[in-house]
Amino acid sequence: MNYTFSDKINPLKPSAIREILKYASNPDIIPFAAGNPASESFPVEIMAKISADIYATDPIPALQYGISEGYAPLIADLKARNKALFNIGRDFDDTVILSGATQGMDLTTKILCNEGDVVICESPSFIGSLNVFRSYNTKLVGVPMDDDGMNIEALEAAIKANKNVRFVYTIPTFQNPSGKTMPLHKRRAMYEICKKYGVIILEDNPYGELRFAGEDVPTIKSFDEDGIVIYVGSFSKTLSSGIRLGFCVAPKPIIAKMTVAKQCSDVHTNMFFQILAHKFITEYDFEAQVKKVQSIYGRKSRLMLDGAKAHFDSRVKVITPEGGLFVWCEMPEGTDIDRLTRAALEKKVAVVPGSAFLVDTSDVSYAIRLNYSTPSDEQIVRGMEILGSVIKEQLK
Amino acid sequence: MNYTFSDKINPLKPSAIREILKYASNPDIIPFAAGNPASESFPVEIMAKISADIYATDPIPALQYGISEGYAPLIADLKARNKALFNIGRDFDDTVILSGATQGMDLTTKILCNEGDVVICESPSFIGSLNVFRSYNTKLVGVPMDDDGMNIEALEAAIKANKNVRFVYTIPTFQNPSGKTMPLHKRRAMYEICKKYGVIILEDNPYGELRFAGEDVPTIKSFDEDGIVIYVGSFSKTLSSGIRLGFCVAPKPIIAKMTVAKQCSDVHTNMFFQILAHKFITEYDFEAQVKKVQSIYGRKSRLMLDGAKAHFDSRVKVITPEGGLFVWCEMPEGTDIDRLTRAALEKKVAVVPGSAFLVDTSDVSYAIRLNYSTPSDEQIVRGMEILGSVIKEQLK
Repeated sequence: MNYTFSDKINPLKPSAIREILKYASNPDIIPFAAGNPASESFPVEIMAKISADIYATDPIPALQYGISEGYAPLIADLKARNKALFNIGRDFDDTVILSGATQGMDLTTKILCNEGDVVICESPSFIGSLNVFRSYNTKLVGVPMDDDGMNIEALEAAIKANKNVRFVYTIPTFQNPSGKTMPLHKRRAMYEICKKYGVIILEDNPYGELRFAGEDVPTIKSFDEDGIVIYVGSFSKTLSSGIRLGFCVAPKPIIAKMTVAKQCSDVHTNMFFQILAHKFITEYDFEAQVKKVQSIYGRKSRLMLDGAKAHFDSRVKVITPEGGLFVWCEMPEGTDIDRLTRAALEKKVAVVPGSAFLVDTSDVSYAIRLNYSTPSDEQIVRGMEILGSVIKEQLK
Repeated sequence: MNYTFSDKINPLKPSAIREILKYASNPDIIPFAAGNPASESFPVEIMAKISADIYATDPIPALQYGISEGYAPLIADLKARNKALFNIGRDFDDTVILSGATQGMDLTTKILCNEGDVVICESPSFIGSLNVFRSYNTKLVGVPMDDDGMNIEALEAAIKANKNVRFVYTIPTFQNPSGKTMPLHKRRAMYEICKKYGVIILEDNPYGELRFAGEDVPTIKSFDEDGIVIYVGSFSKTLSSGIRLGFCVAPKPIIAKMTVAKQCSDVHTNMFFQILAHKFITEYDFEAQVKKVQSIYGRKSRLMLDGAKAHFDSRVKVITPEGGLFVWCEMPEGTDIDRLTRAALEKKVAVVPGSAFLVDTSDVSYAIRLNYSTPSDEQIVRGMEILGSVIKEQLK
């Protein structure tokens, strides 16, 4: 039997990172290539207590079918918390529970895009999301990143130059892969431009709560008076990634269509962990848990940055993150990044070449992405020393 | 802001059943309209024990990101069990874990169908799956049901009459909504026809293990020597529906593409309950749990059928199921089914009109679908008595 696949799926390959991550299962390899939250950040004891409580007191709602919108008490918690802490959510907005943030990109693309429609992205950007957009046969248009996020002039030029631009995808806070954060004035400029041209903004904010330095910058959604921003958040880094729990805040007509699309995808998100998250927020100290995660990532990022300072060639430009999971390192122009990546892997340190995150994969990147949440503290210290010597060797 | 949605999603409405199910949350209404598994079938105590064990012994894999294919030990369990009990899975097949069976319809349609491609379905059929196919802008072609499943001559005629038929969707065992089971000779005929025309069969088998009467009939996948059958199974009825856990067995090239598509949908299925299912199968008596569910549904179906015998007008043709969740009742031609449904609801019994399951919703159905898994035994007895009097009144 010869299998023929749809035009949208046929060209899609497993991501390059996936291939690199295969090495991550080897415990001898230092996993700077991964993007897993720190396992020590998961609140195992509290989750065990809440789980036991659910089974003991009212297990059926946790094990029975639920509605596609999500567990109503958790939606209420999120509405209250997002409004109080981040000014997210207006009367015209609603919230839907997702099976992880990636489902937000999936449903947004499905409800908004016909094949050939244009999605504008930061380049580089999160490969997982780029592949979601590609899986609907959209046309991806990359906009280059400045040191403070997406170049705004290039964004406007891209909107003008393309027909059927359906949305702009951005990770304004602690971007993946660059770790960069867009300042408020640029967020406002992006908002005004998108408003002017009637283009929706898909604001992906999986790392926003992981700030360990600097001052909070308001989300784009927080000043969305016009209903043009779809905001996606996640419990993957604050609670647990394996439970697949996220949410989306967007204008009601968009949430209504996303809910219909979700019914056609996985019907609803795992009920057990929706109830667990609700109980965590209302019966335990979720804010203390978030602070614990911030402090873990603060410590790990400092270890990595100290290692870079001590061991990296001075020609390497290291982007210092104020939160999130990644350190982006730009090598001098002309560096053979593939060779560097391979040389690091031979010394048992896995890193991701920046080219893996490019919208146009034929473009060139002289950067590598390092992750500090997955490796142990000891692995970070040792790995940075090894990587420093590999870089010195490669830049000779 | 005026929102424009994609051509595939724009016409999609929340299903009619969803609207009826809103009444189901009212505890005064007897829920014959629902399709929830019986809550008393969930093995709460064992699930509580396994959950506590996961937290106490090795919680991190249950809370951390996993791979899109699914948890390898659970895949191995399923391969062994499906082969041993049902002769499902050959060397050319592979298995992927799904977030519920509906995701199998979603990923199959996404990887196989361009917009406008044809999907052939039984009519009536499970509305949830029909809406999945619609959400990719496929063209649905319905084939009428005989008393023993899809009419095979009409199937061949439909394949011949349509270009770009990508797959035939069938629930051969205890079909939803009709409760009918296709005998082996018709399954073989369907297989041969699909093989002849190079059309894939999507065999959806969420109820197959819920047999409480009659003899097992081999699945279509069990005689798939040619790699033309995609088989979707579910833990929703044997373990728990709220945890969203299913699986798909199909030829390796298809599973590889589904895995890429799943990465673009929810990345992977909830890890915690994948591990829980693995432990249930290997450390507890999963087969005893399946037998318990069968016996619950045997009892409940008998209560419902006894009620139909005692109270229904003799002109009502009641299809006797040998398993699954539903009793299909065909009223005399010309019956005003919408009026009957409304009259039943006024007497606080919710049923679904057969028209909700039609591929072409402008067709006429004189049937209603009754569910016996959701209501309590006492509700079944009382509800059938009420429904009997409503039907008598309406058929006058």
